[in-house]
Parts: sequence; C-alpha cells; structure tokens
Amino acid sequence: MEEKKFVTELTDINEDLSQWYTDVITKADLCDYGPVKGTMVIKPYGYEIWEHIKEYLDVEFKKVGSKNAYFPMLIPESFLKKEAEHVEGFAPEVAVVTYAGGQELAEKLIVRPTSETIIGEMYSKWINSYRDLPMIMNQWCNVVRWEKTTRPFLRTSEFLWQEGHTVQPSEEDAVKNTKQMLDIYVKMCKDLLAIPVLSGRKTEREKFAGAVDTYGIEAVLRDGKCLQSGTSHYLGQNFAKSAEIKFLDRDGELKYGYTTSWGVSTRLIGAVVMVHGDDRGIKLPPKVAPIQVVIVPIASHKEGVLENTEKLAERLKNAGVRVFVDDSNQTAGWKFNQWEMKGVPVRLELGPRDIENNSVVAVRRDTHEKIVLPLDNIENSINDLMDKIQQNMFDIAKEFVDHNTFDVETMEEMIDCVNNKKVAKAYHCGDEACETEIKNETGIQSRVIIEECDDEHKCIKCGKKAKHKAYFARQY
Amino acid sequence: MEEKKFVTELTDINEDLSQWYTDVITKADLCDYGPVKGTMVIKPYGYEIWEHIKEYLDVEFKKVGSKNAYFPMLIPESFLKKEAEHVEGFAPEVAVVTYAGGQELAEKLIVRPTSETIIGEMYSKWINSYRDLPMIMNQWCNVVRWEKTTRPFLRTSEFLWQEGHTVQPSEEDAVKNTKQMLDIYVKMCKDLLAIPVLSGRKTEREKFAGAVDTYGIEAVLRDGKCLQSGTSHYLGQNFAKSAEIKFLDRDGELKYGYTTSWGVSTRLIGAVVMVHGDDRGIKLPPKVAPIQVVIVPIASHKEGVLENTEKLAERLKNAGVRVFVDDSNQTAGWKFNQWEMKGVPVRLELGPRDIENNSVVAVRRDTHEKIVLPLDNIENSINDLMDKIQQNMFDIAKEFVDHNTFDVETMEEMIDCVNNKKVAKAYHCGDEACETEIKNETGIQSRVIIEECDDEHKCIKCGKKAKHKAYFARQY
Repeated sequence: MEEKKFVTELTDINEDLSQWYTDVITKADLCDYGPVKGTMVIKPYGYEIWEHIKEYLDVEFKKVGSKNAYFPMLIPESFLKKEAEHVEGFAPEVAVVTYAGGQELAEKLIVRPTSETIIGEMYSKWINSYRDLPMIMNQWCNVVRWEKTTRPFLRTSEFLWQEGHTVQPSEEDAVKNTKQMLDIYVKMCKDLLAIPVLSGRKTEREKFAGAVDTYGIEAVLRDGKCLQSGTSHYLGQNFAKSAEIKFLDRDGELKYGYTTSWGVSTRLIGAVVMVHGDDRGIKLPPKVAPIQVVIVPIASHKEGVLENTEKLAERLKNAGVRVFVDDSNQTAGWKFNQWEMKGVPVRLELGPRDIENNSVVAVRRDTHEKIVLPLDNIENSINDLMDKIQQNMFDIAKEFVDHNTFDVETMEEMIDCVNNKKVAKAYHCGDEACETEIKNETGIQSRVIIEECDDEHKCIKCGKKAKHKAYFARQY
Repeated sequence: MEEKKFVTELTDINEDLSQWYTDVITKADLCDYGPVKGTMVIKPYGYEIWEHIKEYLDVEFKKVGSKNAYFPMLIPESFLKKEAEHVEGFAPEVAVVTYAGGQELAEKLIVRPTSETIIGEMYSKWINSYRDLPMIMNQWCNVVRWEKTTRPFLRTSEFLWQEGHTVQPSEEDAVKNTKQMLDIYVKMCKDLLAIPVLSGRKTEREKFAGAVDTYGIEAVLRDGKCLQSGTSHYLGQNFAKSAEIKFLDRDGELKYGYTTSWGVSTRLIGAVVMVHGDDRGIKLPPKVAPIQVVIVPIASHKEGVLENTEKLAERLKNAGVRVFVDDSNQTAGWKFNQWEMKGVPVRLELGPRDIENNSVVAVRRDTHEKIVLPLDNIENSINDLMDKIQQNMFDIAKEFVDHNTFDVETMEEMIDCVNNKKVAKAYHCGDEACETEIKNETGIQSRVIIEECDDEHKCIKCGKKAKHKAYFARQY
C-alpha cells in the first residue's frame, strides 16, 4: 500500500538522534541557517508553533497579573557588572556594540543576554511603596548569547524568548511566584506540547548565576538525555540589592524587594521535535500544529474530486481547523511521506469512492491508524480526533518517561543506566564540588531535585549524608 | 463641579505641542527613558496599545497570504553594502557589534536597521521557480537606528516594528502588493486609531533609499506638522539584483523577482497621542485603550457602594470590556483628572444615589459629556457608547484635517499656510533638487502626492511644468 512506502533521507532516529534532528528541522521547513555562524532563521512553519505557545502563555501570564512591556536591548556594560555572580555567568558570551551612529561609543553596550539588570534599574526608579508591589512584567523579545557550539532552536547565538521579572514584598510571595510560574510552564508543556516534563528545583551547581533557587522543566529525550526547557528563578534580595530596589513597607520601614524571573524560549520548538519525532519525521501535537489537517485529493483528475476537496476544506476552516489542501502535481505517495515528515496530525484522503460513500479516509500521524469518517458532521469528528491525538501523544511520551527513569544506588549503576539511554534517580549530598566530580568523570549532571531528604540515605558519589534525591542525566 | 477642576502640570498643548507631548507621555505612564541616551522603555500602558495594533494587523496580513517568520538581528557588514543607495541611507545610523563571546569578530556585525538585505539573502536561497511566488513574510521585531535627536515613540535608537518583505513575479503584482499594504495601514489607522491619514506615493526626494516608489501614510498634527506613520515600498528589481533573487518563470526563462517591503512601528503610539490629545492629557480611541472604562466609586465608605462597583465591573468584564476600578484613597476629583490625563474613553461614577436609581453616571473623554445610563442592559449601553466615541474621535480628527489643508499657489502662500499651522497643497515639478531648495529655504517638505498632473499647472517653486500636486508641511 502506497502510504507505507515512506522513503526519507533522514538519519535513523534510534541510531543518532542528534543527526536525525539536524536532518529533519530543515527538511520539515521549520528553520534555516542564518548567514552568521550560530544564527538561524525561523521559517513560518516553525514560527507558528512559537505563536501558539505565545498565545497560550500570554493568557496565563495575564491571569496572574503580569503585564507585557518592552525594555531596551542595549545595556550599558557597567550594568552587567553590578551583580558579581551574574557578570560571571554572562560575560563570556555577550555580544558588544562598540560603534554606533558612525562614532565609537564612550561606554560599550551589551546586547542583552537577559534583562535582569536593566529591568532592575527601571524597577528601582518605579517602586517606592508596598502599594507598588507586586510588580510583574513580562517581555517577548530576542536575546543574544554567543555560544561556541550551536544547533537550531536548541542553542543559537540569538533566540526568542519571554522573560518575566517580578518584585515581591516578601520572600514568601517571591517563592510562591517562582513556583506558580513553573506550574504554568509544566501545564503548558502538558496541554499544548504534549510533553511530560520533569520539574523541580535545581541543585546549587545547576542554578542560574545570581539566583537563590532555580526551578526548571526538563524534557526527556529518547536517548535518555535531558533538555532544559524553561526556568523560574527566585533571586532573593540579590538583584534588589545590586539594583537598589527598595520600598517603604506598611510598617514604615524601607526594605529591599524580593525578585523573581522566569522564561521559556524557542528551544521549546526543539523539544517538541525531539520528544515526539519518529523515523518518518516530526510529529506535531494538534494544538500547536500550523497545519492540523492536510487533505490529499485522490485521483484528482476525476470529476468532482477537487471541488469536493475544497468544500471539505472550507467546512473544516469554518469550524476553526487549520487545514491545507495539497493539490500539487506530486504523487499521492510522495505527498503522504512529505506531510508525515512535516508532522501534520491528520491526513484526509478524498477520492471518487469516498465521495460516493459520503465519507473520507483519515490517517493519524501518531498511530498511523486509518479510519473512515462519514462526511456528515465531519467537523466534530475531526475535532474529536485531534483531541484524541493530543492526549495520546502526551500519554505515549509520559509512558516513555515513566519507563525510562530508574532508581540507582551506585555510580556504576548510574553510568550503566545513563549509557543505556535512561534517566537515573539518585541520592546526592548536594555539595557543588561533589556534583562537579560526577560531571567531570561521567558527563552526567543532576537535572532537577525530586525530593529533599532528612533520612539516612547516602550520597551516590561521596557516601556522605544525602540532602536530596534528584534526576541525573546527560544534558542536551 | 468637581470634574471641571482639572489641574494638570502639562504644557499648554496649543502653545507648544512638542513640550506637551514630552510632558504627557511619561505622566500618562506610556513610557520612560532608558539608561542609554535615545532609548526608551515601553511601559505596560503604552505597550498594550501596540498589542492591539499587532492583533489587528496580524489578521489583515494573514488574509493577504503573509506569514510570520523571524530573521537574525545581526547582519554581516558586507550585506549592507550590496545595494548602493541602501548603504548610503543606513550606514550613518547603524550600531555595530565588533566583539562577541570574548573575541573580536572577523567580520563586524550590524544590528539590523531594517532587514531587506538579510531577508533578500534567504529569499535568494529559497526561491527557485514561479511556483515559489509570491513569497510574503512578515516579522515583528526590534530595529536599531542611531539617531542624534530622539523623542519617545517618534524617534528612538531602538524601536519595535513589523517589516513585511515580499517577492512577486511581476512589476504589476509587486505594485499591487505595495498599494494593498498601504490600504491596510490606512484602514487600520481609521478603524483602530481613529486617525485619518494622508496617504499616497512619496516624491523622488522623500522615497526610501533603494526603492523605486515609496508610499506613505502621514498623520496631521494640530500644529500642522506631519508625522510619517508607515511606509510601503515598491523596490522594483533593485534588491532582487543585489541579492540575486531569481526564479524560473513559466516561460522557461530565469528572471529577477520584484520585491516590496512595508512597515509600521511603535511611532504609531506617538501619532495617537499627538493627534487626539487635548489640554487634559491623552485621549485613547476605545479600540486600543488598555482601559476602556474606569469606574470611580463615589462616597465609597457608604454601604453597598464598593460592592456594587465590583458587581458592575464584573458585568462589563464579562461583556469583554477592559475595565478598571479605581478604589484608591485619592479624592474623586484627583481620580477624574488622573484618568482623563491617561485618556480612558469612558468614566463611570457610581454612588449611593445612582445605586438607588439603578443607574450610573457616564462621562465621555472625547466630549466631556455626562450621561445617566440605566444599569439594566449596561453592557450594551457601554459598547454602544464606545462605538460612538470611536467614530466621533475619527470624525473630529477628519474635520481637523479637512479644515487645515489649503491649496496654495505661491511660495509665499505656502510659507504663510505652514506657519499658520496648516498643511499646504501645491503643484510641483517633481525635481529632487527643486524640492531640496524648498526644504533648505523654508523647512517645508512634500509629504505625499495627491495626484499626478498632465495639464498646464506650474511648479510652485521653479515655475516649470508641474508633475504632481502634493501635500507640503514641516515634518515631525
């Protein structure tokens, strides 16, 4: 049967996920390489995924009182130096503007790698009293981090993201906000991207430069590696002190605020590709797919086929479905492969016999299942089918994570586990140097903490009293 | 009466529009100055206006087949030099990255002042056949142009905009696209911003560097100056040739494409402020107002007032109205002034007597008219009222433009006209040098062409045969 003859020039996904990824992202038309090394062009088919993520998050952010704003991209070099750990974290990878308007600048300007410092500067000006708090703003923007090794969506010199920055009146409020935003990210990954992320607090070693605590979400890839897909930071009073963000509290005392920041980026598109892809190409969850349904007319030269295809497309469009008719002059088989590679959740095949039977053949991208659907009420059938696909994609990914995380008790077990493409769960003392030893010796890092522990567990590495149990994996 | 006692610290708008603008934009909380000279922070109250413009345009762009994408911000310096006129136009105002990742770069990178060159580079790679055309992409992004004299929203070193770039198979298609996008801008200004713009083709002198033709929209300000508020360029084959954008046409011939580009920026927010403002502050059209209705409880300590205010707010929110309750402990008079200054279209005052009468007092920002509205069916009354305000704001602005544009026949008349804060309509030979003379001698420039002319009219300046009739004004 034609639809089984898929021929792709993709690398075997089980052999080499990394090469498969490199192959598929340009073939599926998600992106292209920019002229400057390390940069990428996000093509419309990739960009629309980002638009759906934005729409979803924008609503959720506004529900918790966040408002969008826009802060300048160019930051005085001196700002970056205000917070010691922050400068250490970012200085090696910033891009610097030294000339502008035909003149050498008196002070060099940094292209923002993140906006903590400049937003802090403005907040310190705007915030006077407890009545001004909480202050919660978010911006959708580009940032630049000059990375040595780059890969489209996952790590590029410039990327798009949102960065939320808040000032809270107390530690309690700030920690609450940090966790609340993490929850929004977890829910978005589940609802929209069908990705069951590992989530939780990061260890001292893995936290953001200058943060008190960093919380993160991690996507588990089929090779057992983890991909950091979003972070939410509790910054304590560190940034408030360096930026002088003070407020007059109800009790008449002048206090430093407690700040948080949180962000997700276009890396999420890479996560979707990596988590759901298979040997036929990418697989997009219906909720973010730019094309949810592709209609391929069969024997389109026959009377009424194209006309009925258009009619069907129109009905689905009116029902809010993102639909595309492929009436190009390629063979049906070529089209089937092409749209499977591009990850369209549902393919509809409509030919003379289907029209006669007042039905259409639907093929699911997730299960390859073929179903005959009556044309009456097709709008509801398609919407139901997309809900099922969305749910099934999450369930499959969840099952994968559940079946690929294992408790380990020795370093040997951990190395075995990770080498066998699984994620390890292990007790650790929490000591930064001890974790660095693990990393240096094995390439394995903690991802997020599963639970703190008070009991008698021992650190997998040094044997001292364990502080927590965490996920360990290689990072992507 | 309290609501008439408005006290603002704004400069008299009729005396000095420019200073009034500078006063009002920060007081109304639209923006603040960034730490680097010439940069600005767009605060949430200003940014939301931009969000409404984006939402509107995004729908219109997609209707004509445009898709959003994202191209890298950093452009190799050599790209800018590909098109001679283009480099001349932008070279003096670019910001240049010379260091990145701790190293001096082999090739300097330009922060995009516009993206013609880099998008052209990608298009040349993506376009092969007539089947790939038209190619229509748009991006919402930041650009940097290092200007000497800056003013928030109107001219800042960095600003937000959208830039659409298309490749068309023929001159006819390209010119059609150029005009079609101009029409979308004109309609958006009318429908959303209540601004009746002057629109049309620009003269040779005023067109975009490298364009064959530039079309523009111009807002007429109350001091008779014009503010360029958007442009749509027909670039002919100029950019296609420098970027090597070629396609195999139906006839088997390899041809250069015809390109267009079009953009509007956050300058539109400045236009809204300038066009509609009055001595009490800014005045926002309901369609873009972040707060459409502010409810001020009267005698809020009295039983039931706050409760009923909240109930009313809830009803309006559910009807899709953007509503804010000002229950701060300022006086009612202070609040009235404050919200008038911030341009909220409708103020509702709800006190014990209103509650008793099952009604509410509505005050229009545009006419200062006070109306008593029954609480029954208040949702519809408010939506109707907002429609009326939106229409009235446009009508008033339109009347202003109609009453402030005059035909002039001599240079003396033109200077008089412009010095009297009116826009002049005059015949001109179209010669660039002749127009430059007008500019140099009087500060007056052509804005857009009203009509071409074949008949016996003479150039207002040199007396030679006129080529067109155009609007002349000082530019903001």
